[in-house]
Amino acid sequence: MTSRERFLAACRCAPTDRVPAWVMRQAGRYLPEYRALKEKYDFLTLVRTPELAAEVTLQPVRRFAQLDAAILFSDILTIPEALGQGYSFCESGGIAMDFILDSEEKLAALGAAADVPARLDYMAQAMRLARAELGEGRALLGFAGSPWTLAVYMVEGGSAKQFSKIKRLAAEAPALFDALMEKLADAVAASLKMQIAAGADAVQIFDSWAALCTAGEYENLSLRWIRKIIAALPAGVPVIVFAKGMAHLAPQIAATGASVLGVDWTHKLSDIRKLAGTQLALQGNLDPVVLSFSDEKIVRERTREILDDMRGERGHIFNLGHGILPDARPENFAAMLDVLAS
Amino acid sequence: MTSRERFLAACRCAPTDRVPAWVMRQAGRYLPEYRALKEKYDFLTLVRTPELAAEVTLQPVRRFAQLDAAILFSDILTIPEALGQGYSFCESGGIAMDFILDSEEKLAALGAAADVPARLDYMAQAMRLARAELGEGRALLGFAGSPWTLAVYMVEGGSAKQFSKIKRLAAEAPALFDALMEKLADAVAASLKMQIAAGADAVQIFDSWAALCTAGEYENLSLRWIRKIIAALPAGVPVIVFAKGMAHLAPQIAATGASVLGVDWTHKLSDIRKLAGTQLALQGNLDPVVLSFSDEKIVRERTREILDDMRGERGHIFNLGHGILPDARPENFAAMLDVLAS
Repeated sequence: MTSRERFLAACRCAPTDRVPAWVMRQAGRYLPEYRALKEKYDFLTLVRTPELAAEVTLQPVRRFAQLDAAILFSDILTIPEALGQGYSFCESGGIAMDFILDSEEKLAALGAAADVPARLDYMAQAMRLARAELGEGRALLGFAGSPWTLAVYMVEGGSAKQFSKIKRLAAEAPALFDALMEKLADAVAASLKMQIAAGADAVQIFDSWAALCTAGEYENLSLRWIRKIIAALPAGVPVIVFAKGMAHLAPQIAATGASVLGVDWTHKLSDIRKLAGTQLALQGNLDPVVLSFSDEKIVRERTREILDDMRGERGHIFNLGHGILPDARPENFAAMLDVLAS
Repeated sequence: MTSRERFLAACRCAPTDRVPAWVMRQAGRYLPEYRALKEKYDFLTLVRTPELAAEVTLQPVRRFAQLDAAILFSDILTIPEALGQGYSFCESGGIAMDFILDSEEKLAALGAAADVPARLDYMAQAMRLARAELGEGRALLGFAGSPWTLAVYMVEGGSAKQFSKIKRLAAEAPALFDALMEKLADAVAASLKMQIAAGADAVQIFDSWAALCTAGEYENLSLRWIRKIIAALPAGVPVIVFAKGMAHLAPQIAATGASVLGVDWTHKLSDIRKLAGTQLALQGNLDPVVLSFSDEKIVRERTREILDDMRGERGHIFNLGHGILPDARPENFAAMLDVLAS
């Protein structure tokens, strides 16, 4: 079984020879080869230059022979930017959107969702370059933020603490909220279709701000837009939904048409399996901080615990419960993969 | 039924004439009368001056006749401070502990748990003053942070982003971690016993950082210390455990001896009831941001939705899913209580 076959089989809950693995933000700051590039180019230059984005995408699969998938190096905020709402990074590490999206006028001034693929052509180019060098042996993933998660950034104007603006807009100006979500769902669908056409085997939708929603409003504020996106994608391409803090709503998330649910570390995967049944593959869920520990033995133990919890179950893709941390040790990453392969 | 009787009956899952209510951080910045005091005294002066702390404790029950309980105005970090690790507030709003607790030496230098009640006598005094003015008509609550949540602040040295230090300590120096937790459990138990002796009818343990734990390690890192605390308290005094982001582990949390589980807004209370059975009372869980909305009609609708979800069930204490926000509107608070009472 090639890595690509293994990964795609797991997405379908079909048998695999071992559990496949990739890691959220695996192309990133914990890698010395990434930091070397980052000394020469800023983050957005890396994202927007196809050759550089492809290079960064491939760094982890070059280093780790047992890694089953690469994921395009990019950023979820490329979509707001392609629609006309740019952004930058603050000194403090937070994100600042160029303006706060808080009116019909500002929504009307955004570009059309149909123009997003042309504006994000650098992503398609990077995907094609990565695919060409990767070959068919390993899986290649595309991704986007969920409409809800993108709307949080756009309406809050960047990183936020209380998230009052987005929740007030959704509750008090539902027509404006729905119009924004409609545009974002169309834009995300267009971006993901473009990424699939350029070589992505599967795509992940990051609903990083899922847990801002109440259980009762999650369907209306987020899931129905994810369902719309999935319905627009070519049949047979697996969609992973990472719903941070909301995996306990697995049956509802499965009803969007997602093939795989990304689970954070606050759940045992076997508990989610009991909730959601055997047709939804599960992805996760090692606590990212474990890869920053100095004791490799703990990395191996914690990895084994997750494998043991899902032993005998089909449809498990190993991953962290959230993105890898900048101080993660590449040796730990290798030890984790070693446990999976042994 | 008095408010106090109603509140205590709900804690025992006994019948009540209506759902009782209080609100996390109800004594706080959203109240003009609190802000007026805050112009004259800083936060820690308010906390440490019995007359002022009692006054702030009583402000919300004076304003809102239908509020069933007052909660002592204080801070969870009074315990680290009483043990010898002081703290201050940064300009940015974060918390800075006076040092990082990262060695056996620093742990050994902390004071004894047995001395905590004497050092926190100002809390006992404030509780007695509040009790005297409140009378027996309304419930009065004490509280503390969970050992895990306190340890997070002490080991991280204040507000943190990645929480690597506390997780590394727990994993790589388990004897030091356990010794710290033992001391904190004893200190929290001593503080809660003191608050109960001074007039608290019930106590809440805030496990605000619960969701930093994985599902598998939550018992070992947090719940077993909460169990130890509850075992040390006088029988019959209800203990509320607020386990933010971990309510899906309700059966495990109930096994600590807690009477009430505080639930955030990511769950329907009826779903947690199905998980945990009818012997565990549930507290929650309106999204705090709703009290900041300008449309009072939405406040009433959302409050009714939560009541409807638990209609016919015993053992529901109405509250928010987290602390009230500084920009909450007192009129909304009143409207919420009005729905509960009508």
